[in-house]
Amino acid sequence: MIKHKRHTRHELMPEIMTRYANRALKKDPIAGETLEALVEAAAQAPSCFNEQPWRFLIAQGERRDRLMATLTPQNQEWAVRAPVLIVVLSKKDFSYNGKSNYWHMADTGCATGFMMLEAERRGLTYHPMAGFSRVSVEEAFSIPEDLAIIHVAALGYPGDFESLSEKHQARNHPQPRKLIDELLL
Amino acid sequence: MIKHKRHTRHELMPEIMTRYANRALKKDPIAGETLEALVEAAAQAPSCFNEQPWRFLIAQGERRDRLMATLTPQNQEWAVRAPVLIVVLSKKDFSYNGKSNYWHMADTGCATGFMMLEAERRGLTYHPMAGFSRVSVEEAFSIPEDLAIIHVAALGYPGDFESLSEKHQARNHPQPRKLIDELLL
Repeated sequence: MIKHKRHTRHELMPEIMTRYANRALKKDPIAGETLEALVEAAAQAPSCFNEQPWRFLIAQGERRDRLMATLTPQNQEWAVRAPVLIVVLSKKDFSYNGKSNYWHMADTGCATGFMMLEAERRGLTYHPMAGFSRVSVEEAFSIPEDLAIIHVAALGYPGDFESLSEKHQARNHPQPRKLIDELLL
Repeated sequence: MIKHKRHTRHELMPEIMTRYANRALKKDPIAGETLEALVEAAAQAPSCFNEQPWRFLIAQGERRDRLMATLTPQNQEWAVRAPVLIVVLSKKDFSYNGKSNYWHMADTGCATGFMMLEAERRGLTYHPMAGFSRVSVEEAFSIPEDLAIIHVAALGYPGDFESLSEKHQARNHPQPRKLIDELLL
């Protein structure tokens, strides 16, 4: 297993420094307690009116296989070793008045940030993917209409770099980031 | 200063356990290096195609006063002590093809999760607010049309609980969260 660390100007929390979209996963199972803890970490995020719009479909066994089929072939190539896949969903409307919640995606995104850093702290890789068919996930799991699908994550313990194809090895490192000044208004 | 800790079933990272939307802030300034580090923490979040849609308007001095005026009176009551306010913005379209980015809000939300946990690690309160006028912020700072405003955050070191009005004291503790089972599909 190759350890990467981001190059930043400032010292940041260790989980932020080491996290990246690792594709090299072990097939080893993940304890149910650990999966629960990740959901609980996400659930502590702030949200507008404490709506807590985030929802999670944790796919193992048959559900994992069904979800795997909705990924792009390129993602399937490496995600096939993930023992768990997670669909992150977000409730579009406020529960208290049924009106559209402008913040639901941002709040659920924040919750996934909490989840992936807690995963990193526990030595796990949480790899979010946009490369899947939203329609296929909706159909395969009869997703209710009031939920938006945010991403599918591959979850697993880090595995051997050599288990990846050359193509995936070449991309299996932290991607560069914009400079601080490019992000400021 | 009153220390709160969330009640969770599992042990989670210390920053997740202690973070909440604290309203009791000190007026003490925040070092420029620290503000830079928070932006850098946010910038390490993952995003679709590594678009990095997050942008930040860090308001101090005259800009802080101008931004303060866009908050609801209720938020102004306590946020008036925050030495720094931050507008979090999000680029709606992909830079590489100009098309609408379905993930921009979720990705920017994730970045704010990284930012608020790094703030917590550094002993700071990062309090995101939805209670402000988006139109007023757009006008006051001539926000470009391709950016969506996500939230305004009050940033400061934790201060005296007694500095808050009775109304704000009554709400100044971690809000309860849904049970894990309520979040699972």
